[in-house]
Amino acid sequence: MSEYSKTTKNQVKRIPKRGHYDQKTIFEILDAGFLAHVGFVVDGAPFVIPTAYGRDGEVIYLHGASKSRMLTNLKEGIPVCLTVTHLDGLVLARSSFNHSMNYRSVVLFGTAKEVDKEDKYDALQIISENILKGRWDEAREPNQKELKATTVLALQIDQASAKIRSGPPVDDKSDYDLPIWAGVLPIELQTSAPETDPLLKEEIPLPESVRPFC
Amino acid sequence: MSEYSKTTKNQVKRIPKRGHYDQKTIFEILDAGFLAHVGFVVDGAPFVIPTAYGRDGEVIYLHGASKSRMLTNLKEGIPVCLTVTHLDGLVLARSSFNHSMNYRSVVLFGTAKEVDKEDKYDALQIISENILKGRWDEAREPNQKELKATTVLALQIDQASAKIRSGPPVDDKSDYDLPIWAGVLPIELQTSAPETDPLLKEEIPLPESVRPFC
Repeated sequence: MSEYSKTTKNQVKRIPKRGHYDQKTIFEILDAGFLAHVGFVVDGAPFVIPTAYGRDGEVIYLHGASKSRMLTNLKEGIPVCLTVTHLDGLVLARSSFNHSMNYRSVVLFGTAKEVDKEDKYDALQIISENILKGRWDEAREPNQKELKATTVLALQIDQASAKIRSGPPVDDKSDYDLPIWAGVLPIELQTSAPETDPLLKEEIPLPESVRPFC
Repeated sequence: MSEYSKTTKNQVKRIPKRGHYDQKTIFEILDAGFLAHVGFVVDGAPFVIPTAYGRDGEVIYLHGASKSRMLTNLKEGIPVCLTVTHLDGLVLARSSFNHSMNYRSVVLFGTAKEVDKEDKYDALQIISENILKGRWDEAREPNQKELKATTVLALQIDQASAKIRSGPPVDDKSDYDLPIWAGVLPIELQTSAPETDPLLKEEIPLPESVRPFC
């Protein structure tokens, strides 16, 4: 499958031309981030929890403490909605009404199940590598006690869509003559210089994983 | 009320010391952002949609096209969970297990109702000012047709909590002797130089609202 079917759940209804259903676009947006907002229902009420993730094919891995409310609920196989949003800019139009944002987002639906003990290590590595490539091999790897204290879930993507807006504002024709500045204020997540742990005991150089951000 | 009660819904269960329930902390986190992830339930299934917001006291304003699925569902008064997350950094510990993130997040619960016609303009202004201060007065204000095409919701905060992590990694005692670099890679949303709309018809200077970002 290289494209998700449009359903009542994943179809982009407002401004349909911004909707995308192909896996290439959806996976690119997922792989450009590592923080998702996960929605689930408990006793009829919605919960939205920010959490890290990693992707392997059509599976999203989530992890956390074994006692986490989100994970204990999700591993029962209840419906999940996972959303990833990258904000790319404020779109400043001539009219208030046509103000917008540039963004890339994915909304996906599926159900999760717990990852078996023997696959946990690999799944955690996928999440770690998605957050900061190379760090997994630098850090002390998890021991048996730590693996036991960690629950990892595999969320199978059943339905998904992406929504993208980019480019300059689009104003009403008659507004282009107004003496009002219009344009885009670009926004992105940026890193700044790494801060060494004050408790670092000896002169340890910055590792490979962090050096690109210096 | 200056503090929200702890309930089964809003209580921070994992690492309770990171939980905050006072309005000052919660409102500061809300006011530091303008993009929320809104969770709601339709036919038993969760939806999580990214959307802009503004705050006035204990009310969060949301807006969108009148035909929006999210808004048409929310205005019926169904339970809503709204989450705002600021990512502040990657926390790189000596062990994989103790890796974390620095963040400030708010998870709030409430129900929304539609803002009356006569209050719509003010509510839209609150959202706009929260996204980019000063822009409302620069842009052409909404006309009657545009106001009619826009639905604005007032989401009353019933329950809320904040969760905050900051500072360097915390490792197991025995790991501090390992020759592994540890520290924090700070992350924040940053703006870059404003991009003028190529269709701007005359030499219009950058407005007040945007100048601080140059």
